[in-house]
Amino acid sequence: MQEGTQTQPIDELEEINQAIDVFFLRSITEAAAISPHYESLWQEMYRLISAGGKRLRPKMVLLAYQLFGGTATEAVLPIAVATELLHMSMLIHDDIIDRDYVRYGVDNIAGAYTQKYAQLVADDSDRLHYSHSAALLAGDLLISGAYQQILTAALPAEKVVAVQKLFGQSIFEVAGGELIDTETTFRPLGEIKAETIAIYKTASYTFVSPLMIGAQLAEAPEKERACLRTFATNIGIAFQLRDDILGVFGDQSKTGKSVLGDLREGKRTYMIEQFYLLASRPDVAQFETYFGSKSLSEKDATVLRKLLTSTGAYQKTIDAISLYEQSAITALNQMHLDGKSQAKMMNLVEIATGRNK
Amino acid sequence: MQEGTQTQPIDELEEINQAIDVFFLRSITEAAAISPHYESLWQEMYRLISAGGKRLRPKMVLLAYQLFGGTATEAVLPIAVATELLHMSMLIHDDIIDRDYVRYGVDNIAGAYTQKYAQLVADDSDRLHYSHSAALLAGDLLISGAYQQILTAALPAEKVVAVQKLFGQSIFEVAGGELIDTETTFRPLGEIKAETIAIYKTASYTFVSPLMIGAQLAEAPEKERACLRTFATNIGIAFQLRDDILGVFGDQSKTGKSVLGDLREGKRTYMIEQFYLLASRPDVAQFETYFGSKSLSEKDATVLRKLLTSTGAYQKTIDAISLYEQSAITALNQMHLDGKSQAKMMNLVEIATGRNK
Repeated sequence: MQEGTQTQPIDELEEINQAIDVFFLRSITEAAAISPHYESLWQEMYRLISAGGKRLRPKMVLLAYQLFGGTATEAVLPIAVATELLHMSMLIHDDIIDRDYVRYGVDNIAGAYTQKYAQLVADDSDRLHYSHSAALLAGDLLISGAYQQILTAALPAEKVVAVQKLFGQSIFEVAGGELIDTETTFRPLGEIKAETIAIYKTASYTFVSPLMIGAQLAEAPEKERACLRTFATNIGIAFQLRDDILGVFGDQSKTGKSVLGDLREGKRTYMIEQFYLLASRPDVAQFETYFGSKSLSEKDATVLRKLLTSTGAYQKTIDAISLYEQSAITALNQMHLDGKSQAKMMNLVEIATGRNK
Repeated sequence: MQEGTQTQPIDELEEINQAIDVFFLRSITEAAAISPHYESLWQEMYRLISAGGKRLRPKMVLLAYQLFGGTATEAVLPIAVATELLHMSMLIHDDIIDRDYVRYGVDNIAGAYTQKYAQLVADDSDRLHYSHSAALLAGDLLISGAYQQILTAALPAEKVVAVQKLFGQSIFEVAGGELIDTETTFRPLGEIKAETIAIYKTASYTFVSPLMIGAQLAEAPEKERACLRTFATNIGIAFQLRDDILGVFGDQSKTGKSVLGDLREGKRTYMIEQFYLLASRPDVAQFETYFGSKSLSEKDATVLRKLLTSTGAYQKTIDAISLYEQSAITALNQMHLDGKSQAKMMNLVEIATGRNK
């Protein structure tokens, strides 16, 4: 659930951020009426969402909306913002699951509470548990907050309801993707396919859902929507495969993410699946000496990287990214877009497949 | 978040349970299309919700709806059911926070996953963490599932939207109540009032929200709604105070809940607040020898119970329950209900304040 973009497909960033501010400032006020401690939780959420995030999802909602002729951008904006609130809720809960305490280079909710509770809870394990509890509630609040945000859109109630259905579908899919992604670390190899995780944990929620919501709001023709869905699924999978490569071969100074994390965790990505299909027994034996080891060093990682390239697993993944990219472009070409819209969509493809951070 | 009732205020239990079945069977099928492991999570949720729960909240939605002349019970049923789905999500997340693994006398989600993962994850602490992760996702799914369930009601979209707003308000309040309830264990005495917790963690979500949703659906007059809200808040607080008493003085064979848990946890209930207001220094010193001790014995508990009665803290709580009950009845009498409806509401008062389990 990382994202990166060097280019801005659309320009509504400021409006999106302003709407996010309004949502949090109102929530902070309402929470303060209940308890200063509750206000505090909302302050932490606001701090976190303000610390980073490229608002890729809201931008995609607006992009698809405008692509299909939607002009009431102001009215649709709350729905675009809702996708970012949902994203924040998923990040907060994802970080609990991954036992991560930093996000966007700052303390996430659990991280902030570990410090907030430092003077109050002596036992380390209890303090961590209570910090996770605060983060758990924060994520719950943002799931519901996202649904509520949709309700504030100045649109006919029927449209609001239709959007909520798409929204619910994406939560259903991303939670499934998250579960199997978590389980893949300890379930036998081959039981869960990396592509399934890429579809449900990444493509559906990061690309399909925002784009389809935008298309729904613009009442795009059914045929165009089907192409858009194919497009979104394919760039979503490509995005995940690219992300997996960056997790091992990336430049940490650009990705901001350790290139040892996935290897230490033993993350079973598409590339790793390919490795097991292609590698000889001795290669596998050598690989497993280090893969998944919590104390894996940079030197050990170099050994693993060599095995991933020498077996062809790396190249297979690059090829797969190209194939998904091609499928996305084929779907794109079947849509009836003008040159400018086509260029914006190609920009999205670039973001998904060509990013280096 | 416990509940007990010996009487059935209304008779729609079977319809409620059937609608719950439909929701879960559909979700299980959809999850199976993603992964058998995801299907498994939904199976566990279905098992848990089928194992217990008196469907108090859905019944209250229907009760208030019918009270104010609503007759399209079939159409509002999905909304009644949504309150139970939300309740289940809160119970699942509450159990994570409380580190409880049993609910309704059976394994809860985390409890079931601890066993499911027994052969897969060797490390105890990791296994517990992954089990909590599965429960975290289950709760997320039921928050969203509850919102989705509301959308299935055969009602004008405007009504659906209005109900969702009330729904969102109750989630906002219960999460705040849950946060401060958790923090009250370790924050300085007096910083968080037990009454605030009772209002937000219990009254709002268990009584106010279901009853107000029913009234909203029946388009009850504004004045009646205001009385209903006062009624619901007061019986909700009374319910919580009663629950706190049962947690210390209850009959475990009836409540199904240990009468040592709250004392071991050092739970700062209204009764405990009263104790600190009333007790002498030596009483406080003796009290604190045992209160909050994880190894507290039944004999130690007897000492604490004696202190709670001898200082008058127990009686003060009983008196407070009566006062809240009186306020509820005053509000009830200001409503224009026929004899039969009045009796049903009095039944609710009985459930809230007179229950012994």
